[in-house]
Amino acid sequence: MIIVGEKINTSRRIIREAVENRDANFIIKVAQDQAQAGANYIDVNAGTFVDKEIENLCWLVETVQSSLDYPLCLDSPNPTALAEAMKLHKGEPMINSISMEEDRLGPLLPVVTSGPCQIIALCMGQASMPITVEERVDVGAQLIQKLTGEGVPIEKIFVDPLIQPISVDTNMGIAALGAIRKIIDDFPGVNTICGLSNISFGLPERHIINRNFLALAMSYGLSGAIMDPTDIKLTSTLLSIEMLLGRDEYCEKFIDAYQEKRISG
Amino acid sequence: MIIVGEKINTSRRIIREAVENRDANFIIKVAQDQAQAGANYIDVNAGTFVDKEIENLCWLVETVQSSLDYPLCLDSPNPTALAEAMKLHKGEPMINSISMEEDRLGPLLPVVTSGPCQIIALCMGQASMPITVEERVDVGAQLIQKLTGEGVPIEKIFVDPLIQPISVDTNMGIAALGAIRKIIDDFPGVNTICGLSNISFGLPERHIINRNFLALAMSYGLSGAIMDPTDIKLTSTLLSIEMLLGRDEYCEKFIDAYQEKRISG
Repeated sequence: MIIVGEKINTSRRIIREAVENRDANFIIKVAQDQAQAGANYIDVNAGTFVDKEIENLCWLVETVQSSLDYPLCLDSPNPTALAEAMKLHKGEPMINSISMEEDRLGPLLPVVTSGPCQIIALCMGQASMPITVEERVDVGAQLIQKLTGEGVPIEKIFVDPLIQPISVDTNMGIAALGAIRKIIDDFPGVNTICGLSNISFGLPERHIINRNFLALAMSYGLSGAIMDPTDIKLTSTLLSIEMLLGRDEYCEKFIDAYQEKRISG
Repeated sequence: MIIVGEKINTSRRIIREAVENRDANFIIKVAQDQAQAGANYIDVNAGTFVDKEIENLCWLVETVQSSLDYPLCLDSPNPTALAEAMKLHKGEPMINSISMEEDRLGPLLPVVTSGPCQIIALCMGQASMPITVEERVDVGAQLIQKLTGEGVPIEKIFVDPLIQPISVDTNMGIAALGAIRKIIDDFPGVNTICGLSNISFGLPERHIINRNFLALAMSYGLSGAIMDPTDIKLTSTLLSIEMLLGRDEYCEKFIDAYQEKRISG
């Protein structure tokens, strides 16, 4: 599993204040904790600053990479912000995200093909949010074809089926899960990724629902998750599922995590 | 999901002592608690009493049903014990279990076809424990053919893929999961069931592993579980997965369980 640590997002007040105050030490600490907990990429998102998003996103990239030799996941709906952040980024970033929306696809294609990067391809159509498995797979397929057509290796594409709340429509879980399975069946080598928390929007005990959704999505073939790697219960689920699916030889990673007190139920 | 409450088993010291002391009130309480927590069947097992198993199993059947109008899961490897318990049982029991072992299949076939019952068909071969998916499916298919050949409706058969510890062989999880999927694909209408705790034998934090295995098995199509329905964390997993798989309209069962404090993480 590829884990994208989601904690550096200015929609969280503690992060927004740290960005406003240019509290580099705090941001670095949040990045380090996630790296240590097993994140493969550290997400940086300054989307709540409408006018200053570009400036703040660039500050986050430079701040985190000033002390941590680690790849980041550059997270914005704004193609210009992603282009600027990508210029500053050292190494191969992940881009979060491209979609079939017109104002995003056109400007982003030259950016994501300007250098090596991993690309999250969000199953958001030109006009509307997908509802069914088929609508998700349709948008995902279009994005895969666009990107591979531009020379992007399929292994660098992470299709995000777009998670919507089951409280709004009980079928939203199986629609996303079905899309994950169909996309990896139809496009061997492609990766899939998603965030976990939208699924439980509007329901109580969201953490329980989120981690059970992770378990299900992994069993349907999910290869990446945008999540909090410092959440011990979520990590316990992730490591249990990896082990139960036969991907943890001699149960070594699970037992190591237990001994390091990174497993708890 | 069909839930078989597993707590009345004399391998648990507290139950063994209650059986020895003929403490009917205690046994009835354990049965009632499981029924109230959502069990569809109450398992009764007196297997630790080698010489007195039949007498004690019969006492358990009469004791539980004396106060609870509820179907039991009659649990023994001994065909004579099952035959005697079935004679006393009021209503339609579940029989746990038949297998392809010679000393079990021959004597049990006339018992399980003597009256209506649900039958757990354990994927244990004539000579050896199954290792692979194929070996499990092979034994399961033989049992389904034997039973349906004797007139048992396929819906009354619960194939148990036989769970073995992943600590012994990392592939034991996917072998059981793959067998569940293949059996329900090959035999539409058949049910599948298993216990959860063998999977984690020899590992730390077994409850975490067990409940994640339940999540996985449900996503592979498991329709029954032999489990402790009073375990709130396990129930939280079960209800979350049912909801995420689109089987809980308006998320009503989950929200009700939350309000009744039967959900906790």
